[in-house]
Amino acid sequence: MSAFDDLMAFQRDTEALSQIAGRLGWDQETMMPRASADQRGEEMAAIEGVLHARRTDQRVADWLARAQAPDATGAANLRHIARSHARATRVPGRLASELARVTSLSQGIWASARTANDVAGFLPTFKTVLALKREQAAALADGGDPYDALLDDHEPGATGQGLADMFGALRPRLVALRERLLGAAHQPAGLSGTYHEAGQMAVSETLARSFGYDMTRGRIDKAVHPFSSGSGNDVRITTRTNPVDPFNCFYSTIHEVGHAAYEQGIDQKHLLTPLGQGVSMGVHESQSRIYENQLGRSAPFTAHLFGLMRDTFGDFGVPDAAAFHGAVNRVTSGYIRTEADEVHYNLHVLLRFDLERLLISGALAPEDLEEAWNARFLADFGVAVDKPANGLLQDVHWPVGLFGYFPTYTLGNVYAGCLNHALRVAIPDLDDDLAAGNSAPATGWLRSNIQTHGGLRPPRATIEHACGFDPHEGPLLDYLEAKFTALYRL
Amino acid sequence: MSAFDDLMAFQRDTEALSQIAGRLGWDQETMMPRASADQRGEEMAAIEGVLHARRTDQRVADWLARAQAPDATGAANLRHIARSHARATRVPGRLASELARVTSLSQGIWASARTANDVAGFLPTFKTVLALKREQAAALADGGDPYDALLDDHEPGATGQGLADMFGALRPRLVALRERLLGAAHQPAGLSGTYHEAGQMAVSETLARSFGYDMTRGRIDKAVHPFSSGSGNDVRITTRTNPVDPFNCFYSTIHEVGHAAYEQGIDQKHLLTPLGQGVSMGVHESQSRIYENQLGRSAPFTAHLFGLMRDTFGDFGVPDAAAFHGAVNRVTSGYIRTEADEVHYNLHVLLRFDLERLLISGALAPEDLEEAWNARFLADFGVAVDKPANGLLQDVHWPVGLFGYFPTYTLGNVYAGCLNHALRVAIPDLDDDLAAGNSAPATGWLRSNIQTHGGLRPPRATIEHACGFDPHEGPLLDYLEAKFTALYRL
Repeated sequence: MSAFDDLMAFQRDTEALSQIAGRLGWDQETMMPRASADQRGEEMAAIEGVLHARRTDQRVADWLARAQAPDATGAANLRHIARSHARATRVPGRLASELARVTSLSQGIWASARTANDVAGFLPTFKTVLALKREQAAALADGGDPYDALLDDHEPGATGQGLADMFGALRPRLVALRERLLGAAHQPAGLSGTYHEAGQMAVSETLARSFGYDMTRGRIDKAVHPFSSGSGNDVRITTRTNPVDPFNCFYSTIHEVGHAAYEQGIDQKHLLTPLGQGVSMGVHESQSRIYENQLGRSAPFTAHLFGLMRDTFGDFGVPDAAAFHGAVNRVTSGYIRTEADEVHYNLHVLLRFDLERLLISGALAPEDLEEAWNARFLADFGVAVDKPANGLLQDVHWPVGLFGYFPTYTLGNVYAGCLNHALRVAIPDLDDDLAAGNSAPATGWLRSNIQTHGGLRPPRATIEHACGFDPHEGPLLDYLEAKFTALYRL
Repeated sequence: MSAFDDLMAFQRDTEALSQIAGRLGWDQETMMPRASADQRGEEMAAIEGVLHARRTDQRVADWLARAQAPDATGAANLRHIARSHARATRVPGRLASELARVTSLSQGIWASARTANDVAGFLPTFKTVLALKREQAAALADGGDPYDALLDDHEPGATGQGLADMFGALRPRLVALRERLLGAAHQPAGLSGTYHEAGQMAVSETLARSFGYDMTRGRIDKAVHPFSSGSGNDVRITTRTNPVDPFNCFYSTIHEVGHAAYEQGIDQKHLLTPLGQGVSMGVHESQSRIYENQLGRSAPFTAHLFGLMRDTFGDFGVPDAAAFHGAVNRVTSGYIRTEADEVHYNLHVLLRFDLERLLISGALAPEDLEEAWNARFLADFGVAVDKPANGLLQDVHWPVGLFGYFPTYTLGNVYAGCLNHALRVAIPDLDDDLAAGNSAPATGWLRSNIQTHGGLRPPRATIEHACGFDPHEGPLLDYLEAKFTALYRL
C-alpha cells in the first residue's frame, strides 16, 4: 500500500464515522425519545471525539507528506484532507472542548431569552461565545483575516471582502425593488382556508419525487425545522405542516430536495471520500434555491402545483393559475428571515453579514448589537423592529457560534441566479416541461453540471464550470426584477 | 487522575460508541431506506473497527494492571473491562475481519437457501462459517473448552456441561407433558376473524405502558422481527402485526418490554459503564419471558387482556375469559421455534443446543447436520420435518455465526421459573393485581431485585441474589405442569 492508499483507506472510515454522526443528528430531530437528550449528548461527544482524533492524527500528516495523487480526483482528495487536518490541528484542544461545551449550553439560554425577549439576559452568554469564536478565528487564521478563517468552514475560498463587494452591488437594487413592489397598485392575494396534514404530506411526496428525490435512498419525516441530512445513498429530508400555510410545507420540501438531490447525485465513485459530499454551503444552497425558487416558484410550475392542490383539496378559493402564482410569490415586509420572500430574503442576510463581520473584527461590541440591528433593519425594511424575538434574537446561528454561515445563503441565491441563466440557455423550452410538472430536464442538467462532481473543484470553480462564466450577482437581480415587476404589473 | 479514573473515562466513551452502533442497528431494521444497505455496511464496519481498537487498546491493559477499584461497583467494572479486553485481544485481527466479512455475506446466502429449501446450496458457506467459528472458539478458549468459550460471549460463567445437565433434566418431563396435552380430550379453541392493525398497535401500547415501559425513554415501531435495542435512557422496542394473529403482536410487545424494562430499570449510576446493561442473554431472557409468560399469559392477566380486546375489537367470538385464556395458551406441535408455545419452546432449543455442541467439538460434520436435526425432531416432536425451511434452515443464528446463543433462551426460561417462584412468595396476592391489569407490583419486584443491579453480579449470582436459592429447572417444570394440566383438564 502506498501512502496515498493508506491515507484514503483511513479517510474512508473517517467519512463513514462522520455519516454516522450525521445520522444521529437526524434521529435527534425526528425519532429520539424526549428524555434521551442527555445520554445522546454524551454519545455525540464520544463520536465527535473520535472524529477529532482522526482528523488530527499524526499519521495523516505523515501520509500527506508522502502521498502522491494518481490523478486529478486524488489531488482533490488530498486537498480536502490537508485542509481538514490543518484546520483541526490549529485549534487547541482546550478551546475546541470549551467551544463545544459553551455553544451546547448557549442554545438553551438563547431559546429562553428569545421567548422572554430578554436581550440583557442573553448578553453574558453571547459575549462568551463571541470571545471564544474570535479566539478560534485567530487560531484558524494563522496570521490571515479572522473572519475569512471562519467563513472558510462553510465556504472554502470565499473572503469577507469579496462577499462584501458582491453584496454591496445587490443591496441598492433589492431595496429599490422592494419599495416599488410594496408601492404597486396591484397586490396579489394570499391563501385562505385550512389544508389537512395528510394532503400536505401527500403533495409533498409527489413534489419530492417529481424533483428527482430518490426515495429508495432517502425518506421524508416531519421536524420542527426542516433539514436535509446525510450523503451518498442515505440522504433523508424533513418537512413540516401548518394547516393555514401549505406553501411552507411544499417549498420546505422542494428546498430540502434540492439539498438532498445534490448529495444523492454525486458520482458513486466519490462515495465515502472527501469529494462525496456537497463542496460548500453556498453551492449547496444554490441547489436548494434553484429547486425552490427559479424552478418551483416559476409560473409554469406553480400552474402544475395549482392543479395538484385542487386535486387534493378541491376548490380552495383561488380562481386560476395566474392568481395562484401571485399567492405563491407575494412580497411582504416581515421581520423573520426564514419566512421572507425571494426579494426580502437577501436583505435579511446582508444585514447579518455586515454585523457579524464587525463583531468578529471587534469593531462592534456585543452590547451595541441590538441598536445596530434595529437601525439597519429600519433603513432596509422601512419598519422598526417591534421586539427582540423579531430582531436579533430570531436566529440560532450566532448563539451556537455559527459566524460566516449567513452569507452562504445569499451566495447560494447568487449562484442559483447564475445557474438558472445557464440552464435556460441550455434548455430553451424548459417552461413547457415545468408546466407539465416535469422537472427532469432541469434537474438532469444540474446533476450533470454540478451535483455529480461533488467536491472535485473548489466552490466558485464548481459554479463557473457549470455556467461557463465567472459567477456574479447580475443574473439574480435581473431574474428578480423581471419576475416581480411582471407579477406586480409594473 | 488515577489509573482507575482514566480507565473509566476511556470506557465511558467506548460504551457511548457502543450505544451508537446499537442505534444504527435499530435504524437499519426500522427506518433505513432499502438502497442504503451497502453504505450502512461500511458505516457499521467503521464503528466496529473503532470499538475493536478501543477494546484492544494497550492503554487499557496498562490501566487494568495499575487500577485500584474503590468499591464493589468499581471491582465489577474492572472485571467486565478485563474480560472484554482479554476476549478482544485473543482473536487475531485477521480472523475477526474474516468472520465479520463472511457472516455478513452468509446471511443473504442463507436467506435465499431458506426460500429455496436448498440445504446443499448453503452448505459451502455454512462450512466456512463453522470453520471460522471453531478457529475463533479455540483462540478464545486459550486451552479450555471451545464451546464454553463461545457460550461466554452470551452467558459469562456458564458451561456446556452445566447446561447439558440442566437441560437433560428438562427434556423428559417436557416430552412427557407435551404428549399428555396433545392427547387430552379437552383441546382449547384458537382465535378466528381478523383484527385491524390500528387496534393491535393501540392495545400494544397500552400493554407496554401497563408493564412499565417508559415511553419518554423509548418508542415502539414495527419491524419484521421484533427486538429491543439500547441501554439506559434510549431503549426502543419493535413489534409486528398480523391481521389474523393479534397475540403475535401483543406477546411480542410484552416480551420486548421485558427486555427494555431491564435496560431502563438499571440504576442510573451505572449509565454508560459496563454495568449499565443487562448482564447476560440468559438474565435478559428471564425478564422478557417472565413478563411474557408467567405474568402476561397468566389467567388473571389474560382476563384483563380479554376486556381490552373486546373494548377494541368488539365481540370477536370468544365467549369468556376462561376460553380466552385457553386460546392464548394453546399447545400445538409446530416446526418453528419462534412460533412455539411455552411447552414446546424449550424442546426446540434443546435440539439446537445438543447439535451445536457437536458441531463445535467436531463430532458432527456439517454434511450430517440435516439428518441429525430431522431425527431428533421426530423423536421429540413426534412428526417428521417436511422441508428444510421448517427444519435446520429456519433460524438465522448459525448462519451468522451465533453458536452458544440458543441455550440462553431456555436458561432464561429456567431463570424466569425461579423468579416467578420467588415473586409469588414475596407477593402472595399478585393475581389480584394482574386481574386488574396492574403489573406494577410484579415489575417493581423485578426492578428492585434484578433490573436495578445491571452487571453488578455475574449472571447466575444475579438470579440467586433475587430468588434466595440456587437456580434450577424445577420451578419452571412445576409451573408448566401445573398450568397446562389444569388448562387441559387433566
